[in-house]
Amino acid sequence: MCRFVAYLGQPVTLARVVSEPEHSLIVQSYQPAEMTSGTVNVDGFGVGWYNRAIDPTPGVYTNICPIWSDRNLPGLSKHVASDCIFANVRSATPGQGVDQSNCQPFAYRQVLFMHNGYIENFRATLMRPIRDALRDEYYTTIIGSTDSEHIFALFLNNLHGKAVSLDTISGAMVETIQQLSVWAAERAIRIALNMAITDGACIVASRFANAGSAPSLYYAQALSFFPHGTVVASERLFDDPRWMIVEENTIIALTNQGDVGRKQITEGKNR
Amino acid sequence: MCRFVAYLGQPVTLARVVSEPEHSLIVQSYQPAEMTSGTVNVDGFGVGWYNRAIDPTPGVYTNICPIWSDRNLPGLSKHVASDCIFANVRSATPGQGVDQSNCQPFAYRQVLFMHNGYIENFRATLMRPIRDALRDEYYTTIIGSTDSEHIFALFLNNLHGKAVSLDTISGAMVETIQQLSVWAAERAIRIALNMAITDGACIVASRFANAGSAPSLYYAQALSFFPHGTVVASERLFDDPRWMIVEENTIIALTNQGDVGRKQITEGKNR
Amino acid sequence: MCRFVAYLGQPVTLARVVSEPEHSLIVQSYQPAEMTSGTVNVDGFGVGWYNRAIDPTPGVYTNICPIWSDRNLPGLSKHVASDCIFANVRSATPGQGVDQSNCQPFAYRQVLFMHNGYIENFRATLMRPIRDALRDEYYTTIIGSTDSEHIFALFLNNLHGKAVSLDTISGAMVETIQQLSVWAAERAIRIALNMAITDGACIVASRFANAGSAPSLYYAQALSFFPHGTVVASERLFDDPRWMIVEENTIIALTNQGDVGRKQITEGKNR
Amino acid sequence: MCRFVAYLGQPVTLARVVSEPEHSLIVQSYQPAEMTSGTVNVDGFGVGWYNRAIDPTPGVYTNICPIWSDRNLPGLSKHVASDCIFANVRSATPGQGVDQSNCQPFAYRQVLFMHNGYIENFRATLMRPIRDALRDEYYTTIIGSTDSEHIFALFLNNLHGKAVSLDTISGAMVETIQQLSVWAAERAIRIALNMAITDGACIVASRFANAGSAPSLYYAQALSFFPHGTVVASERLFDDPRWMIVEENTIIALTNQGDVGRKQITEGKNR
Repeated sequence: MCRFVAYLGQPVTLARVVSEPEHSLIVQSYQPAEMTSGTVNVDGFGVGWYNRAIDPTPGVYTNICPIWSDRNLPGLSKHVASDCIFANVRSATPGQGVDQSNCQPFAYRQVLFMHNGYIENFRATLMRPIRDALRDEYYTTIIGSTDSEHIFALFLNNLHGKAVSLDTISGAMVETIQQLSVWAAERAIRIALNMAITDGACIVASRFANAGSAPSLYYAQALSFFPHGTVVASERLFDDPRWMIVEENTIIALTNQGDVGRKQITEGKNR
Repeated sequence: MCRFVAYLGQPVTLARVVSEPEHSLIVQSYQPAEMTSGTVNVDGFGVGWYNRAIDPTPGVYTNICPIWSDRNLPGLSKHVASDCIFANVRSATPGQGVDQSNCQPFAYRQVLFMHNGYIENFRATLMRPIRDALRDEYYTTIIGSTDSEHIFALFLNNLHGKAVSLDTISGAMVETIQQLSVWAAERAIRIALNMAITDGACIVASRFANAGSAPSLYYAQALSFFPHGTVVASERLFDDPRWMIVEENTIIALTNQGDVGRKQITEGKNR
Repeated sequence: MCRFVAYLGQPVTLARVVSEPEHSLIVQSYQPAEMTSGTVNVDGFGVGWYNRAIDPTPGVYTNICPIWSDRNLPGLSKHVASDCIFANVRSATPGQGVDQSNCQPFAYRQVLFMHNGYIENFRATLMRPIRDALRDEYYTTIIGSTDSEHIFALFLNNLHGKAVSLDTISGAMVETIQQLSVWAAERAIRIALNMAITDGACIVASRFANAGSAPSLYYAQALSFFPHGTVVASERLFDDPRWMIVEENTIIALTNQGDVGRKQITEGKNR
Repeated sequence: MCRFVAYLGQPVTLARVVSEPEHSLIVQSYQPAEMTSGTVNVDGFGVGWYNRAIDPTPGVYTNICPIWSDRNLPGLSKHVASDCIFANVRSATPGQGVDQSNCQPFAYRQVLFMHNGYIENFRATLMRPIRDALRDEYYTTIIGSTDSEHIFALFLNNLHGKAVSLDTISGAMVETIQQLSVWAAERAIRIALNMAITDGACIVASRFANAGSAPSLYYAQALSFFPHGTVVASERLFDDPRWMIVEENTIIALTNQGDVGRKQITEGKNR
């Protein structure tokens, strides 16, 4: 399990998203409030952001240490501002080692990706089926050992050949969830797929589990802390009645104009 | 604050001390039970041990990551056995960075040292007085930024010129506590000095605070888990009625014959 | 490219093999003498050793820093002795990141493996064919991104179901080289496969390239520096006329009785 | 010894300074051309920069790995631009460990500092005299073990109470060199003090040794690679006739208007 936050709106510093909220990712790393498995999130972290005036691809900063002990982050997050920010703290599943290659968010061209959840017994169950389904160009992007990175590769495979937009991201995300649901059903394993994906202009996020409760997911707009943006987060970053829960088995789609769309996920059918 | 364990007796593997007990340092790193400040101990760790047949100085292994995510430790701790083992998990005090130089235990010639506690506002209060009191040969050994390493240097300064033995270690430890108590009283600051020191043949440990409760400290002998040795630990490693609490403001002195001595610490007088 | 050393014989400390020779791996890391590509070997290192009285599997210590700046190695290598020692310094191929998962030697049960060489453009050429050839149990062991780890998995796949011995290791090693040669020929790519494999009782090493010169490889016995053992090394560890070059396209097989066998590698035929 | 580069002028990306020149710091880390001691610079690195529209203090990014294997730097250096950039690759002096605390540049409020050189046998010679000369507020800033960080603290001590400007930086730098020269003469030790200091608006750099040749130092203006700025560097970043050598025992002072002043350093007299 991990905890993540995504921001889209008027530019704010990385610090505003990562460390300044009362129940920030810093706090969630050592004292998360709504984890369904694991106790702390100290096996690395990552931050991604866009400066599309300079470059369409995101900057990404990751490290394998606990987020609070990283010495570069305070300066970096005070000096960098962006209109689209992803941040993540990691709790490594046993067997998915603490390598920098395993720290999220993952980037591919202009796309950033984070996953909070799991594929049950991943290496013995869906690692190989996922890889076997991939085109070479996505197969070869995988350098770490996490289920998350493999899920991202499968998403990219589903996005293949389409122009990147809110619609194509949403479509490929749903397709990815449906595929994985089918494969999981065939093997009678549990999966949880809270994801966030962005191209710098829109964010699509999912809350999904094929059994039991999905990990928590919230979003909010027009917060006094973030007056001109939308935030999506695993846990509420502070008390505020404007936080809304994302329903289970749902994706939400945010534009940088402040629009929010919702869509029920129809689970893949086991043919 | 940190958590530590020390073992003296018939040789056991490092794993026996570090990872196999039910409430081992691994567990204490993410779920400590008796911490008086801080919540987790994931800012590095260290293990020291002796193989005096080969060399009188200890081997030391430290790393800045959480103890559970270190990949060398499982193999190492299964392959190395010793009759005297020190192990420590660290919770860094803010301002005392996560550098390997700051990971305990610290070694100097044949002596190993661990400290669990604090000097209040260390860098602004006692850092300079401690350093100023040191002979050059101990002054120059300090390479990190922790209060713990400075306390060790002061201990070595007090041990200077004496043959290392249970008596001289006990004497220098008490002298160190008294000095620091005087300096702390002059500045009205709090100090907590749970220490463990060994030369590979004996262990001396202290439980001390100049105000409020000292951090917890226990010891036990003839445990079924460690039938032929003595264990000193910040927290009990498993349920067993044989664990005895070390009284506050006390040092205990253990020999490798199984003897246990106790001594009340008379606080230094503020002259 | 990397540099490696393997030792089999009367027990010596790790230091004797790793750091004490005049042209040790420490020196070869910043000043190698016979590298055919790359300039330094500072992208991590590893040491493996056996203590078969305690456990049939090897202990392994790896780190991603340059070998000379590791702080645990000096103490560890002075305190641990063994009759079978593998050591390696790494020069990462671009794209095969500096993760601890990528540091050699690799271990699987009682087997240790090191590789010095390359598969040309690995991720785009043989990564997928190698993986596709693997049984699930070896497929799932791969956690890093190096050609070396994949070659080891293919070797294990070829060893599958056979009792581990000098003969079965030699056979599986030759089979692995032949397979890779065929696949390389089909794609017109270059491969270099200097490998060393041990079970703690014997060592089998190869010197092989399918085009141009293979990386250097030497061995020696009855050296005054290692009077009771055999050493295999990428570069000679000091001047001594007893060093013998391993011929290209050859494997050598060493027993802990001091026997040395040689065998020409017949390249796999491209069917 | 280390290698450094400083830039002042129209904003450029960090990549322009750090990695894009033909003989960049990346190359100088594994293949330096003018080192007078050591062979490689792979014991960590650092980059500092200003974005004074947001904050008067610099951002700093350091890591203990070789500069070429850092995974965050490529993205970061492509996404961050600045009008004042400092960068450094480190070759650790034995005994001055590879901790992040020891990576340059060092920052204090709005000042950035880098040092390339050495104090002979530092820990046994000038460490204590330097510390003893410091006001508490600079004494307590030292968290690592390098001569460089101590020299920076001494500089800050000399700057104490003065408004930061080109003149006060120059004055405090010369005073620091003179003090250290006197103390070095008293102990008959060698020192080399190539330094670069900035407040984001001006850069002052020194080339100085009290015996033998000082480490190399160059500067250039109106380069086609950096048309609107001034560069100071340990080694020329590419072939160009505009590179000028900084004379030994000289400081140069650069403004962001392109002015360059020079001043001979009069060595401190040993009273």
